[in-house]
Amino acid sequence: MRIALLGGTGDIGEGLALRWAYHSDHEVVIGSRDPDRGRAKAEEYETELASRGVERKINGFANEMAADRADVIVVSVPPYYVADTIETVEDRIGDAILVTPAVGMERGDGGFRYSPPPAGSVTEHAADAAPDRVPIVGAFHNLAADRLANLDVDLDLDTLVVGDDEDAKETVRLLAESIDGLRALDAGGLANAAEVESLTPLLLDVAMHNRDMHDVGIKFV
Amino acid sequence: MRIALLGGTGDIGEGLALRWAYHSDHEVVIGSRDPDRGRAKAEEYETELASRGVERKINGFANEMAADRADVIVVSVPPYYVADTIETVEDRIGDAILVTPAVGMERGDGGFRYSPPPAGSVTEHAADAAPDRVPIVGAFHNLAADRLANLDVDLDLDTLVVGDDEDAKETVRLLAESIDGLRALDAGGLANAAEVESLTPLLLDVAMHNRDMHDVGIKFV
Repeated sequence: MRIALLGGTGDIGEGLALRWAYHSDHEVVIGSRDPDRGRAKAEEYETELASRGVERKINGFANEMAADRADVIVVSVPPYYVADTIETVEDRIGDAILVTPAVGMERGDGGFRYSPPPAGSVTEHAADAAPDRVPIVGAFHNLAADRLANLDVDLDLDTLVVGDDEDAKETVRLLAESIDGLRALDAGGLANAAEVESLTPLLLDVAMHNRDMHDVGIKFV
Repeated sequence: MRIALLGGTGDIGEGLALRWAYHSDHEVVIGSRDPDRGRAKAEEYETELASRGVERKINGFANEMAADRADVIVVSVPPYYVADTIETVEDRIGDAILVTPAVGMERGDGGFRYSPPPAGSVTEHAADAAPDRVPIVGAFHNLAADRLANLDVDLDLDTLVVGDDEDAKETVRLLAESIDGLRALDAGGLANAAEVESLTPLLLDVAMHNRDMHDVGIKFV
């Protein structure tokens, strides 16, 4: 499968790119608003993988080019850029599934607060921004970026997928599970996205208030 | 310590009563709106414990009597009875810590939704209902009642505590950890209670949408 990581130059995008390239045979394409930056980061990921004996070609492009002919497009940009990024690539989406890992949060007194857009969640906000025919799946919200990007770390974590298109959701669930140590659970339809997204500020609060819980993740047991 | 479980005749109250009586030396007192029902359930718990070779005296009373001289009062009633229950026992609270495990939820299309009261969370709603001097701690929200009440099951779970009074929170954290297999993590102040409470509808959605996840709980890893 061809996976385009828009905003794949940082945060969660970097970790997903490295993990898919390292653990699976999926083609990984990096998108950025700045094509030079996309190319530079793609080369950086190739070097990182080569240092571990894995020779993979990773291409970097402008977001529009990266989205072109992708099977799955992960919109790994901050929540306030999600709608703009989708609009930028709208003509290139084709039959692709759109995946959003973004979470709206604010830092308040003594912790992080879930702060969804008016649509109710970033996932539903992305659904509003995309053409109606495009399936939207929320996933990968609860993965700490540094832990995901560090290939020395065994993940042994769960992530949750939400979406109204069952086939698209299953595709993304399997794609998530092509990463070693990551289990993907079904959290239901788009209307459940707020509960899934609000796990992220909770994880940050748990990391803040307890010892040795930096980059904490979750397992459902 | 003397722990009063108001609404200790069902749901999460039953499990907490059995676990504390089974795993710790804390005195457990059952409260109910109906004192006869409180007494009957307390006897039932004694019988259950005796069948496992543990002889413990558990008293059952009306909520007011149960709260009297307690060190910790757990208000294990549905969210819409929390304020009334606190008002009923207000004169008996003394120096006790009030603990709320309740979560506001609605069942919607394809899942459960977090539905907090106007205060922002049930924990903050309880804080508004209680006298200002009483420390409020939110805890035990994310424990499935049947799993907690089944002493044949090793828990191996985490729970989260929130509250603005650090001493009270630490007391409740240690009380939680006096139950075998339960780890209690600090999730910060009362203002973080909504993120903690909204984990419960998410757990119900995960249970609903995945195989073999009945009574699912959580671990932070």
